[in-house]
Amino acid sequence: MDDQSLSGVADRNHTIAGETDDPATPDDKPGHECGVFGIVAADADVARLTFFGLYALQHRGQESAGIAVSNGRSIRYYKNMGLVAQVFDEEKLRPLSGYMAIGHTRYSTTGSSKLENAQPFVVESALGPLAVGHNGNLTNAASLRRELLQRGVGLTSSSDSEVITQMLAGGEGRTWEEKLKVFMVRAQGAYCLTVLTRDALYAVRDPWGLHPLCLGQLGEQGWVVASESCALGTIGAEFVREIEPGEILKITLDGPQVIARQPSLHTAACLFEYIYFARPDSMLHGKVLHAMRVAQGRELAREAPCDADVVIAVPDSATPAAIGYAQESGIPYSEGLIKNRYIGRTFIQPDDRLRKLGIALKFNALTDNLAGKRVVLVDDSIVRGNTSGPIVRLLREAGAREVHVRVSSPPIRHPCFLGVDMATYPELIAHRLTIEGIRQHLGADSLAYLSLEGLIRSTGRDPATFCTGCFTGQYPVEIEVVDKEVFEVR
Amino acid sequence: MDDQSLSGVADRNHTIAGETDDPATPDDKPGHECGVFGIVAADADVARLTFFGLYALQHRGQESAGIAVSNGRSIRYYKNMGLVAQVFDEEKLRPLSGYMAIGHTRYSTTGSSKLENAQPFVVESALGPLAVGHNGNLTNAASLRRELLQRGVGLTSSSDSEVITQMLAGGEGRTWEEKLKVFMVRAQGAYCLTVLTRDALYAVRDPWGLHPLCLGQLGEQGWVVASESCALGTIGAEFVREIEPGEILKITLDGPQVIARQPSLHTAACLFEYIYFARPDSMLHGKVLHAMRVAQGRELAREAPCDADVVIAVPDSATPAAIGYAQESGIPYSEGLIKNRYIGRTFIQPDDRLRKLGIALKFNALTDNLAGKRVVLVDDSIVRGNTSGPIVRLLREAGAREVHVRVSSPPIRHPCFLGVDMATYPELIAHRLTIEGIRQHLGADSLAYLSLEGLIRSTGRDPATFCTGCFTGQYPVEIEVVDKEVFEVR
Amino acid sequence: MDDQSLSGVADRNHTIAGETDDPATPDDKPGHECGVFGIVAADADVARLTFFGLYALQHRGQESAGIAVSNGRSIRYYKNMGLVAQVFDEEKLRPLSGYMAIGHTRYSTTGSSKLENAQPFVVESALGPLAVGHNGNLTNAASLRRELLQRGVGLTSSSDSEVITQMLAGGEGRTWEEKLKVFMVRAQGAYCLTVLTRDALYAVRDPWGLHPLCLGQLGEQGWVVASESCALGTIGAEFVREIEPGEILKITLDGPQVIARQPSLHTAACLFEYIYFARPDSMLHGKVLHAMRVAQGRELAREAPCDADVVIAVPDSATPAAIGYAQESGIPYSEGLIKNRYIGRTFIQPDDRLRKLGIALKFNALTDNLAGKRVVLVDDSIVRGNTSGPIVRLLREAGAREVHVRVSSPPIRHPCFLGVDMATYPELIAHRLTIEGIRQHLGADSLAYLSLEGLIRSTGRDPATFCTGCFTGQYPVEIEVVDKEVFEVR
Amino acid sequence: MDDQSLSGVADRNHTIAGETDDPATPDDKPGHECGVFGIVAADADVARLTFFGLYALQHRGQESAGIAVSNGRSIRYYKNMGLVAQVFDEEKLRPLSGYMAIGHTRYSTTGSSKLENAQPFVVESALGPLAVGHNGNLTNAASLRRELLQRGVGLTSSSDSEVITQMLAGGEGRTWEEKLKVFMVRAQGAYCLTVLTRDALYAVRDPWGLHPLCLGQLGEQGWVVASESCALGTIGAEFVREIEPGEILKITLDGPQVIARQPSLHTAACLFEYIYFARPDSMLHGKVLHAMRVAQGRELAREAPCDADVVIAVPDSATPAAIGYAQESGIPYSEGLIKNRYIGRTFIQPDDRLRKLGIALKFNALTDNLAGKRVVLVDDSIVRGNTSGPIVRLLREAGAREVHVRVSSPPIRHPCFLGVDMATYPELIAHRLTIEGIRQHLGADSLAYLSLEGLIRSTGRDPATFCTGCFTGQYPVEIEVVDKEVFEVR
Repeated sequence: MDDQSLSGVADRNHTIAGETDDPATPDDKPGHECGVFGIVAADADVARLTFFGLYALQHRGQESAGIAVSNGRSIRYYKNMGLVAQVFDEEKLRPLSGYMAIGHTRYSTTGSSKLENAQPFVVESALGPLAVGHNGNLTNAASLRRELLQRGVGLTSSSDSEVITQMLAGGEGRTWEEKLKVFMVRAQGAYCLTVLTRDALYAVRDPWGLHPLCLGQLGEQGWVVASESCALGTIGAEFVREIEPGEILKITLDGPQVIARQPSLHTAACLFEYIYFARPDSMLHGKVLHAMRVAQGRELAREAPCDADVVIAVPDSATPAAIGYAQESGIPYSEGLIKNRYIGRTFIQPDDRLRKLGIALKFNALTDNLAGKRVVLVDDSIVRGNTSGPIVRLLREAGAREVHVRVSSPPIRHPCFLGVDMATYPELIAHRLTIEGIRQHLGADSLAYLSLEGLIRSTGRDPATFCTGCFTGQYPVEIEVVDKEVFEVR
Repeated sequence: MDDQSLSGVADRNHTIAGETDDPATPDDKPGHECGVFGIVAADADVARLTFFGLYALQHRGQESAGIAVSNGRSIRYYKNMGLVAQVFDEEKLRPLSGYMAIGHTRYSTTGSSKLENAQPFVVESALGPLAVGHNGNLTNAASLRRELLQRGVGLTSSSDSEVITQMLAGGEGRTWEEKLKVFMVRAQGAYCLTVLTRDALYAVRDPWGLHPLCLGQLGEQGWVVASESCALGTIGAEFVREIEPGEILKITLDGPQVIARQPSLHTAACLFEYIYFARPDSMLHGKVLHAMRVAQGRELAREAPCDADVVIAVPDSATPAAIGYAQESGIPYSEGLIKNRYIGRTFIQPDDRLRKLGIALKFNALTDNLAGKRVVLVDDSIVRGNTSGPIVRLLREAGAREVHVRVSSPPIRHPCFLGVDMATYPELIAHRLTIEGIRQHLGADSLAYLSLEGLIRSTGRDPATFCTGCFTGQYPVEIEVVDKEVFEVR
Repeated sequence: MDDQSLSGVADRNHTIAGETDDPATPDDKPGHECGVFGIVAADADVARLTFFGLYALQHRGQESAGIAVSNGRSIRYYKNMGLVAQVFDEEKLRPLSGYMAIGHTRYSTTGSSKLENAQPFVVESALGPLAVGHNGNLTNAASLRRELLQRGVGLTSSSDSEVITQMLAGGEGRTWEEKLKVFMVRAQGAYCLTVLTRDALYAVRDPWGLHPLCLGQLGEQGWVVASESCALGTIGAEFVREIEPGEILKITLDGPQVIARQPSLHTAACLFEYIYFARPDSMLHGKVLHAMRVAQGRELAREAPCDADVVIAVPDSATPAAIGYAQESGIPYSEGLIKNRYIGRTFIQPDDRLRKLGIALKFNALTDNLAGKRVVLVDDSIVRGNTSGPIVRLLREAGAREVHVRVSSPPIRHPCFLGVDMATYPELIAHRLTIEGIRQHLGADSLAYLSLEGLIRSTGRDPATFCTGCFTGQYPVEIEVVDKEVFEVR
Repeated sequence: MDDQSLSGVADRNHTIAGETDDPATPDDKPGHECGVFGIVAADADVARLTFFGLYALQHRGQESAGIAVSNGRSIRYYKNMGLVAQVFDEEKLRPLSGYMAIGHTRYSTTGSSKLENAQPFVVESALGPLAVGHNGNLTNAASLRRELLQRGVGLTSSSDSEVITQMLAGGEGRTWEEKLKVFMVRAQGAYCLTVLTRDALYAVRDPWGLHPLCLGQLGEQGWVVASESCALGTIGAEFVREIEPGEILKITLDGPQVIARQPSLHTAACLFEYIYFARPDSMLHGKVLHAMRVAQGRELAREAPCDADVVIAVPDSATPAAIGYAQESGIPYSEGLIKNRYIGRTFIQPDDRLRKLGIALKFNALTDNLAGKRVVLVDDSIVRGNTSGPIVRLLREAGAREVHVRVSSPPIRHPCFLGVDMATYPELIAHRLTIEGIRQHLGADSLAYLSLEGLIRSTGRDPATFCTGCFTGQYPVEIEVVDKEVFEVR
């Protein structure tokens, strides 16, 4: 149904993504930023295993999917727009034979959804074929891009992943190992890379460890890297360890070999992986995310208790925190909102009559669990604040006597420049309004956010190891003033 | 991606639907049987309202969608394969102008998924144009079909909805009202119909009231009928009442008018609407389904208590029952299984290595909530028993010390002949095995089903008003030996 | 690219096809009316042979294509919108196994281009499965249609081919042979049918023999029927004879058997098959069409000589007549107009600047052959007269000193009601204007048409054996006042 | 219908294009090599005019089409696989607003038919956006490609047009004018370029003038460049002159300006443009091609006369030469072969029985014009010799007493390395066999080719101004041993 043709605009203007008014996707959540996968296995159908790995990582990006495979001589690839199950069928997998593969599933912000940006990027270079899958965002992409243009490389897309690919293809260094090390010297910001060459698979994670990347073992002879551990479980691989921040890991049939492990003074893991991004059954630092989210709900109940009759969640992502809040507070947990499971992109806009009903397309309230009750509504985060108000209204119309909103993360007051599609300053409700102002905007009886300390406590880790940029405005890397040359779709 | 061409086989052979081995849809649930919708409204965009009504009924059928609109002179329609949001865009809606409309969303069993069977069926007849949407299954379709063939009507599909349409188009009676009454005399089995003629919308429900159909009011001048009340809420209509079993309701701009209400000695509502089919936020007989399912869990906890540490559900459908079980038993509720939200039809089959992992594509276990614990796993129903075993295994691998399966409905021992895609006798695990045999098959530490009495008690209604065929083998209507003439896809 | 969904309008209004302003198809020619094909062969891939037969008949209809195959037990079919080579690939052919097949390629008038009308029509009937392919037009379709509606058959399309199929499925008679005979009693107008049942292939031609249908033999054991003999040659079959007007021929593995040969007082073959429709390499009554068209040019040169320097044709259809004119007149033949071979349906409209250039998208003039010359421009027919004027202008702009238009058929003064998409009275230029008026409209120096006598003389046959309706207004059958119940596309 | 996704193989292997056995395209002709178009016009819809320009150039390439437009600030583009009328509709044209545009229609050899290779190529460069359309073939592409890889540019396709684009984007020079001049110093071989930058359109033709490129004027203020003059006529532009070999022409709203005119010792125009490529209504050096092809036929009749009854052509391309042969010899011209106008790419292969019939899918013989006659069959060229034999056989089966083959070009004994998809040495029949050997292979009674002198005489130009490489093996530029790094489709 989508048109897979190539089109675009090449200019130098800024682009400001407009607010989407898609009735079917009013999610007020930060956007994911792609899933990466890589595998080396002698006697396995690596393309098929990559397919199922991407299937498990689908929540990290739904725009496009691609797989590249090396047989030791050449790299074959296939990529297209859509969910991984839409992009691939047996006919598409068949030519992808080899013993090493990488895969990618891409999330995209409004306006750059097009085939040119689909990954992996595959190029022929002086050292032979090269395929790159990237999760993250370089903070100095604009100056690196300018450098490439000055060096005489014509760029076909607005993607910083193309920048990375061309930096590797043409950067200094006589070997891929050298090129990757030079890249890490030059690149600032978030990057988890899977790099496939004719002879090896490389897994690379930025020194701040902003986004997750882990290593697994598949039987005796196979090795897997993936954005999240859930992809290992899906294909029957055992979790081995996380790729360290600043690490370059080379994997061949001889097994994994650490090429570099850049000493990183302090890491800066993205807290939103803990709050919302990663699948609840994935593990970070040895803990399952679901448990950490339940702990966030418990912290929240301690920090912001409430006299109420029932605890409900904004499904599905806030359910663990709501369960935690209920456990700690002793207030019974129940379901108060039903999510339409078949919600999806629709091209039909509601007319005015329907627009007033707004949120009802996505959620319906369960009157019996709400009528006459004092309700604690647990959400995991509020970005723009444009969906929480309608939900509060929905609950009141269903008879809720009081609605107390509890958010299992701190107020988001700053944008993300490190690979999360968050929002701009003027869009962030917690940048514009006080907590009391937000409460009034939502029409809630009370509103409380989890403290940053409480959030970090729920992870059981050292506070110094996280990026808190979107909460505090203090980023782990210098943020370049963005003046992107962009290729933007009409 | 689907091919929307016409193809088929015209013969007289039986067809036995093979077991699907689609790795991505191992649902062990009965199949829904379509959603119907109808609307009459003077000053509204009835096609658009029908679109959003179908959107809310999408869970009742995902194969095809269609809308037919009357402007008082002619009927225009559009239908195609796919979800309602895939089938319709603004360009498709634009020509569908008028003041009365019906819509249909179709579920289909394997093997008859094709455009010929998409609804509404629209024909020109001696009384003018006619469009029919049908939810249900006629038990005497085969003999009615034979009659039509004898009468000289060539039939283009295997659908009993085409049979209904041709019976109305060519049946006795000088008016649509007469024809509908004659139809009700001849038809046996389950049917909720929305019938659109040039001048009126008719809502028809079989005398047994097997499947739900309700009436709503939209503002001052609009009237709506829908399979479930959730569709009323979505478009801002108020619930008025259920269409009575045996009722023919005519709706024009002058409002609804009861044409017939066949005295029905006893109704026979499908219990699976209460257990699984209807959306939890829909209402049946004045009660919200979510509340009745919580009550099923409470009954189950009383009937089959258990000494355990945690109650978990097979998501999402069994969550209310699990919450009820937890509430009644005092055992804490938590999440133990995470469902891949992007699961969908995939054409890629796992290889042998992956096939052993089986269920992991759909569910992952949450180790922290399970390890070392005695777990109560609540499911709403077990049909073939082919997914519960792998789930029990998954829980044990995640460290569960004991797994006690509790099912919030009775054992399904008989097929359904009234519009539910259940399974055949040899496929039904409770037909083949004792409860103890099933327990062994699942590998559970204990297994208990809700009693039929308990189930009915949860509805708060008279036991005589339900169809209990799939549990007891006693059907409300005589079941014809099926010898269908089928048009089957290659 | 086309949307293959089902849509339509069911009403009783008349439909008048508007004039197309498609810039790329300004053909001023009558429309073809479908090609039919049928085959019985024991050891051959009948679906594949049918494919290549339809490929050769593609000029008779480009809208949709379909093939139905019988294996003696059931009939399988596939049909879709598009050219036969677009509709079928190996995957589509594979399930079509059997030893008897029919195929159809459909031409369609504006407004009814949709999948419901694609042929063959396949239905289940009291006598078993039935597939019908039809070329022609019933003149009493409206009353037959009314009869079917009265008999209680709901009709899903506006096609008279559906009327034929339902008449056969439900008409009187205990056997297919009886039903076909009854059909021939009731049907008026043009029909060449290929009818496939479980056990036999029937070829049926109307008593007037309006459109061609011939029989061929394929090796020892195979038999073929086709609209034109060119389809026989393409698959290596030998021409045997024409199916006689009024004949029903039954073909099984035992060979062909004449079931009926209705005595026809006089036949009425469509003269436009001789002028334009049939492929120049096909044969009618033992003569190749190319030769007859050359003879038309010779006749024309004798009837309407001209003092000129060069003879050119409107390519490609008038080339044989131009060659004949040149041979007879002694004036040299050359090419004066080049046709864009890649012309096709385009959705891009020229703007005003381009619209003035008009015809240039389809034809370009060859200056060298025209400049300073007196040109005879031979065309085979003029219907509306909207393309000849621009061509004359084009020739003058290329330097032609004089342009003498010669038309190798008589003036078309009446519509066709027998299966040719001709035009309505007000559209026909020769209905509105005198020859001199047309000459002025075209801007030609002189204009002459071939006489009806000359045209018939070129065929070498008895004048009484032709339909001359479009030239004389005298039709071989009574024409019913048309008040069609139509299903019309938005 | 085509899959527009991205896929490929990145390796260093040679690729040998297999012989196609597509039954529907047995053309034994050299392949065209793209059409280019460019326009600057203040008050016109330049994208629409480009569309119609490409429409007229469609014969030069049918694989993909694209248009890029500059509005003085940015460049927008759209390209896709398919004919220009399939690729573009109003919705695709709408965003392409501006006052300068280029367009491209691409021919492709087997194996590299994919979206990555579609043109124009559009990149962001240090000097701003750049779009390039290319017709031709660089003979030193491999070393230029190696240079780019060494310079650190990763290449995404096997196209030498990408090489050109990256050479311009990153080559030496502070302005586009300088960069274009440097490019012309480095590039060897055939190239007609239309280059669109933010501020200007450039038309560039290689110093040998291998392929045609001409300039036209559109009204007062518009300027057009196109591969052939037929595209000028189609949009109403006046022919001005050819772009000179070695010329760089810059066009802005101020009109055209010659930037460079490299002194070229001798030009080397491709003779196959005269024989077959260019449309017969296009002009080269002030002469219409149709007239030159008639002259080739006359020369051929003088050089190789024949005692025969009829002259026929292999339609459509050889028709002018056949007319010329007939005129000079006095033997009557007629049509002897009918070409199936709906021939096109089909995915259905004939089975063995049909394969023997071979050519009949494309051509049918006209018995009446052949039976008992001595036939001169005129073709314009023979490459592999695999279709002429079946045609001769076809004529004999149709009754031809003698078949004398006359070819209006010399024997092709060498491949082309300058942008024509000719064939390899072992494939060229005139490389392997003597004239007598070819005659026997074809089964003709006699065979004669036009002499090179005769061919050149028909053009009326200096013999020193042509490339005769495919006839003589003497190429105007040094041919690099090809060791391409290719991206090849599975």
